Amino acid sequence: MATSLTKSNVVLSNTEYKVVGTRPIRHDGTDKVTGLAKYGADLNPAGALVCKLLRSPHAHARIKSIDTSKAEALAGVRAVVTADDLPLAEDKIEEIGETAINVRFLSDNILASTKALYYGHAVAAVAAIDQHIAEDALKLIDVEYEVLKPVLNVLDATGEDAPLLHEDIVTEEFGGGNGKPSNVASRLRFEKGDVDAGFAAADVIIEREFDTATVHQGYIEPHAAVVHWNADGHINVWTCTQGAFPVRDQMASVLDLPVSDITVVPSEIGGGFGGKFPLYGEPSAALMSRMTGRPVKYVMSRAEVLEATGPTPASHSRVKIGATRDGKITAVDAWFAFEAGAYPGSPIGAGAQCAFASYDIPNGVLVGDDVLVNKPKSSAYRAPGATQTGFAVECVLDEICEEIGMDPIEFRLKNSAKQGTRRLDGPVSPRIGAIETLEAAQAHDHNRTPVGGPNRGRGVAMGFWFNGGGPSCCTISVNDDGTVTLIEGSADIGGTRAAIAMQAAEVLGIDAHDVSPKVVDTDSIGYTGGTGGSRTAYATGLAAYEAAQDVVRRMKERLALIWETTPEDIEFSDAMFSSASNPELTMSFKELSGKLSTTGGPITGSANVEPTGAGPGFAVHIADVEVDPETGKVEILRYTALQDVGKAVHPSYVEGQMQGGVVQGIGWAINEEYFYNEEGRLMNFSLLDYRMPTALDTPMIDTVIVEVANPGHPYGVRGVGEVPIVPPPAAISNAIYNACGRRLRTLPMNPGRVMSAVLSDPM
Amino acid sequence: MATSLTKSNVVLSNTEYKVVGTRPIRHDGTDKVTGLAKYGADLNPAGALVCKLLRSPHAHARIKSIDTSKAEALAGVRAVVTADDLPLAEDKIEEIGETAINVRFLSDNILASTKALYYGHAVAAVAAIDQHIAEDALKLIDVEYEVLKPVLNVLDATGEDAPLLHEDIVTEEFGGGNGKPSNVASRLRFEKGDVDAGFAAADVIIEREFDTATVHQGYIEPHAAVVHWNADGHINVWTCTQGAFPVRDQMASVLDLPVSDITVVPSEIGGGFGGKFPLYGEPSAALMSRMTGRPVKYVMSRAEVLEATGPTPASHSRVKIGATRDGKITAVDAWFAFEAGAYPGSPIGAGAQCAFASYDIPNGVLVGDDVLVNKPKSSAYRAPGATQTGFAVECVLDEICEEIGMDPIEFRLKNSAKQGTRRLDGPVSPRIGAIETLEAAQAHDHNRTPVGGPNRGRGVAMGFWFNGGGPSCCTISVNDDGTVTLIEGSADIGGTRAAIAMQAAEVLGIDAHDVSPKVVDTDSIGYTGGTGGSRTAYATGLAAYEAAQDVVRRMKERLALIWETTPEDIEFSDAMFSSASNPELTMSFKELSGKLSTTGGPITGSANVEPTGAGPGFAVHIADVEVDPETGKVEILRYTALQDVGKAVHPSYVEGQMQGGVVQGIGWAINEEYFYNEEGRLMNFSLLDYRMPTALDTPMIDTVIVEVANPGHPYGVRGVGEVPIVPPPAAISNAIYNACGRRLRTLPMNPGRVMSAVLSDPM
Repeated sequence: MATSLTKSNVVLSNTEYKVVGTRPIRHDGTDKVTGLAKYGADLNPAGALVCKLLRSPHAHARIKSIDTSKAEALAGVRAVVTADDLPLAEDKIEEIGETAINVRFLSDNILASTKALYYGHAVAAVAAIDQHIAEDALKLIDVEYEVLKPVLNVLDATGEDAPLLHEDIVTEEFGGGNGKPSNVASRLRFEKGDVDAGFAAADVIIEREFDTATVHQGYIEPHAAVVHWNADGHINVWTCTQGAFPVRDQMASVLDLPVSDITVVPSEIGGGFGGKFPLYGEPSAALMSRMTGRPVKYVMSRAEVLEATGPTPASHSRVKIGATRDGKITAVDAWFAFEAGAYPGSPIGAGAQCAFASYDIPNGVLVGDDVLVNKPKSSAYRAPGATQTGFAVECVLDEICEEIGMDPIEFRLKNSAKQGTRRLDGPVSPRIGAIETLEAAQAHDHNRTPVGGPNRGRGVAMGFWFNGGGPSCCTISVNDDGTVTLIEGSADIGGTRAAIAMQAAEVLGIDAHDVSPKVVDTDSIGYTGGTGGSRTAYATGLAAYEAAQDVVRRMKERLALIWETTPEDIEFSDAMFSSASNPELTMSFKELSGKLSTTGGPITGSANVEPTGAGPGFAVHIADVEVDPETGKVEILRYTALQDVGKAVHPSYVEGQMQGGVVQGIGWAINEEYFYNEEGRLMNFSLLDYRMPTALDTPMIDTVIVEVANPGHPYGVRGVGEVPIVPPPAAISNAIYNACGRRLRTLPMNPGRVMSAVLSDPM
Repeated sequence: MATSLTKSNVVLSNTEYKVVGTRPIRHDGTDKVTGLAKYGADLNPAGALVCKLLRSPHAHARIKSIDTSKAEALAGVRAVVTADDLPLAEDKIEEIGETAINVRFLSDNILASTKALYYGHAVAAVAAIDQHIAEDALKLIDVEYEVLKPVLNVLDATGEDAPLLHEDIVTEEFGGGNGKPSNVASRLRFEKGDVDAGFAAADVIIEREFDTATVHQGYIEPHAAVVHWNADGHINVWTCTQGAFPVRDQMASVLDLPVSDITVVPSEIGGGFGGKFPLYGEPSAALMSRMTGRPVKYVMSRAEVLEATGPTPASHSRVKIGATRDGKITAVDAWFAFEAGAYPGSPIGAGAQCAFASYDIPNGVLVGDDVLVNKPKSSAYRAPGATQTGFAVECVLDEICEEIGMDPIEFRLKNSAKQGTRRLDGPVSPRIGAIETLEAAQAHDHNRTPVGGPNRGRGVAMGFWFNGGGPSCCTISVNDDGTVTLIEGSADIGGTRAAIAMQAAEVLGIDAHDVSPKVVDTDSIGYTGGTGGSRTAYATGLAAYEAAQDVVRRMKERLALIWETTPEDIEFSDAMFSSASNPELTMSFKELSGKLSTTGGPITGSANVEPTGAGPGFAVHIADVEVDPETGKVEILRYTALQDVGKAVHPSYVEGQMQGGVVQGIGWAINEEYFYNEEGRLMNFSLLDYRMPTALDTPMIDTVIVEVANPGHPYGVRGVGEVPIVPPPAAISNAIYNACGRRLRTLPMNPGRVMSAVLSDPM
């Protein structure tokens, strides 16, 4: 999975900078490789109790009664809670990371009240003096269930007489105004142009249906937290999360407290990918801490992570695309149905919006359904929703290319979105790099070298992600040796300490390592959104840029006193202050730093930003595969990921994000799926049975960084983390077709499915 | 020791405020009473080694060799260091708290290089896997000493042929330019007016000599730290200290590193009183952490604290005062000699400056000597130096009052410093409250009620302290529920989290508990001086005030966008924004806080200050004692402390500071002293033998808060913590005289001394 880290990977670069664009060792590197970094489970306060959750053995069941008395009586048990102990939650939409959920449902997902809605749904929690007693206590809790029939996919869930998960959810857009409840939690619709006329103008129309599986983010670190409800009413939460402030918000909502009663201290995080935003055991641990006065620690097992945290939704799609013989798309019509899981709130909106966003589509209609099924409440997962819809769209486009006999990159160039293109859902594109990325792919050696050999084929696909903005803060203090400290509120998942520090260093003209970045708790920095949506290097980076500018402004004011001039007379560039009116006056940043304590005191700069200029990112991937005709096994022979990143702040971490996204996309494509039996019980709840790709399953993944500066950021930065997961399933499906002549439209395309396709339709 | 916490204790109040001047429960109260607060010894990282120090058994000895090989060979020992392992320190004066020290001496005090200069001086350090092995290893270190004669007081140290501690210290001002080294590390001199003419104009002249003992601050928490020298070269120091940044500075100086290589995380602190500024074991622990890659923890025993940390200097004084019969001081001539201990740097400067600062002295000369003796390097202790000199001055004044038959308060009112008074050392007084405090004492019931009864007497004394300024920072972030978080870099010793938060709350018009204050590490806040010199509620409070003003300014900018007006059009008072041009437009702070996330993002305000307007504080104390003629025991019958505090931010904590200062002053007066034998070995190295006052030894200490607003602070705040320790020894000595007719001029005035005075001079 290594790549050659040479400059030549950047095929189109915007401005060169002194620090931005270099590859310093990350500030947290040593702590992470030496084991010093503290993750969620690494806090062990004296006297902490162990929290364990009792989980439903049924995918769908009414809870008739819960008797906790025997558990409470067990020696060593200190507290037991059920949903009755949670405050009655109000209807209120909480944005958590890249999805949203009604607090009432969030609370019900934490401890089931009237119904257990999926296998593994928590129904009670125990706090005991050790793990073994806590586990024994779970067995002593008597829950009387009335078992109901589960629904396990969108088609079953929307069928006639399907059992209802929530009897109070009525979606008029779905039911046609009949006022009847259904499992469709919401329906969205986007339309542009004249769809009928568009299809009438088409020479070729292809319509296909697709399915994707429930797939987990597969972060290596299970969820873990220590919660202490202090005697003064203040709650301290230590947890591994993508967003300390979103955790604070959710705790406040679920426990019905003001946010100021809660401090969230983020640990290091061993992966999240969108799945480490929602609360799970924290509120139960909090309640039991209040009851006992002791810290309560909860650490999930791997099985709990797979059974009961939020995977990405499985989906069913129907996509119809019309195009002319000369390669122009004339109309699209698509329906996407996502499995929300047990509660409303799949990323169907983002998925539908991204589906065709790489292209300039004159006429189109998009319908998206958020469908309730008896599976865990789905969660965000890297470019949430875009991979599901992209798989369908990019596979249909490949069929159109075949039909009209056009090279898939050439076809995409003809239809590419560009500055000024209006998306089907409304927004108009700012300056984007879709065309530049396609051109880089077209020119790439991979595209120009034949794949060669029997059972081998090549596929191409493209992907889009918005990239995020949102609130971020940084505060920078100047040390008297000319270095600075920087505090921020963004969890560092993929090297953002470095990427954010580098942007401050660029402003100040100092080395990346002259900035000491630190991720602090929610009491110590202004509100900062979670690390997700590919927003952090962009938005928190911008906060660092602005905070550094604030430092420069304050340093100029100080120097104006020393030089007896005005701040406006002072210029700053390349770490050197100079006077415009007197060229003999110069002072380095370092020298002035050493004079602060004697000229009015220390200097701290701060900035709060909530930028709206995140530039969308585009990815074009080329995959070569070989299909084993005996076993159906798909081997990835060569893989090239090209992407417009705006400006790569730290190219190594950008390349790492691109490679990581591809590997996860390969997992979706050929390996990963939740396997439920008919009763809705998850059968593959370990990483032995839930098969993620390993280093042995993936080739060298070549990366090509394209840099089309984002005008919404001073260094042109775009988000980079999400979009590389979007193209792989379609690129690999298209490659499989070219290798063996079978179009696979259901993920994962594992050996069984490939062999079925080969055997049912022999070549 | 309790006081009635009624408003009537404030006899003269400046402006009334909404929050400032109230008595909310402190933010850290619950953590401290429930044991949750983490002190220096409470951090126990996995794999930490235990550091123990080998200490010199001789008060003065040349170190001929140190052989650590046997210790290093002991199973479980991981590292041993001596002075040879420390970088060669350069000559550089480091300000640490309220005193200063040359880094070369600081380093030598941490590990003795060529000479052991006091009993308990560290000569080597061991890191081992547990405390017992570490202690065993100390016994295996062979140190060859050449024992030298020690000098143990200023008179011996300055005598002919006194053994020299440092052969390279030459003080021309002391030696008369003879170029010969001596134990007088420095001599200072202040002079004003015509001293001879002043004495010539006097009707009465009294000249006396005084001695004070070596006294320890007596903080309950021993020094403790965990130091981890990370593999990337960064050093993390967890320690109980009065100043995280001063620790960072000292570590950088002693280890010859840039400050940016060091992060200091302050724990809670169980008392400091000036003694928790200097480094002791931290650099040794750091070196051994680097050698082993593991965290190294060091916790002093009580004996180590007493033997080897910095107590306040013992002193010898000669004070001569002349006055007219009608009660005007005409001239003073004083010589003060302080025991620096083993290295230069006693607070002789501050002591000399404070000696007469309560009074308007037309003519005077002050000489102060910093004298090296074979005792631990002295350190700051609450109003450093002022108690020693104040004892001498206030006792002589009492004799003058007796001689001219004038009431001691009346006499002090006649001579009191006031706005415009020039001190002997130069500065001119700003608006001060010396007269108001004396008048409050004069009017107080205690002063108007006869002491009555045999063997009973009353004494009065006055005290002065500068109060400090210096650098401080605060950063305030607004939560969407209208509360705020506040981060600061000031160790909270006496309730400053509350006092600082309250000043921010006052600006924002919110409750004290709507501010969550947090003391953070040196990476997370701008440079902030240590908590000492009575600077914190003033300077860090001012930073909080300014940061809150910055929040208001940013909120106005935001609201101007919402109201489509200019920030200048918006007024803010009593937690309510309003438009000057449109009276219908109003919005509360809380409501606007809830709109920030949708109008441009979060708001953080910050401020760095280094104010120079700290207003001096004055204290007038009245003490009633009874002397037991059989035993010499002095019982304090009644005690009233009156003090100008400018404005009491939190009156309960101000009263607590006043009472605490008095109790410590009583300790100096009648109980406490280091007892060295002739070889310079400390004989009373436990709190059983080193006798501090307990609650049973002290009466109710009445406090009277006088509020003469300090013009250098928006709420008129002055420092409060230091000055109440200054008057007690003199007030009690004067009371003893009035009880039994004996003037005691040597501290402590313990039963033995009192009986000796009675027996040697029978009444």
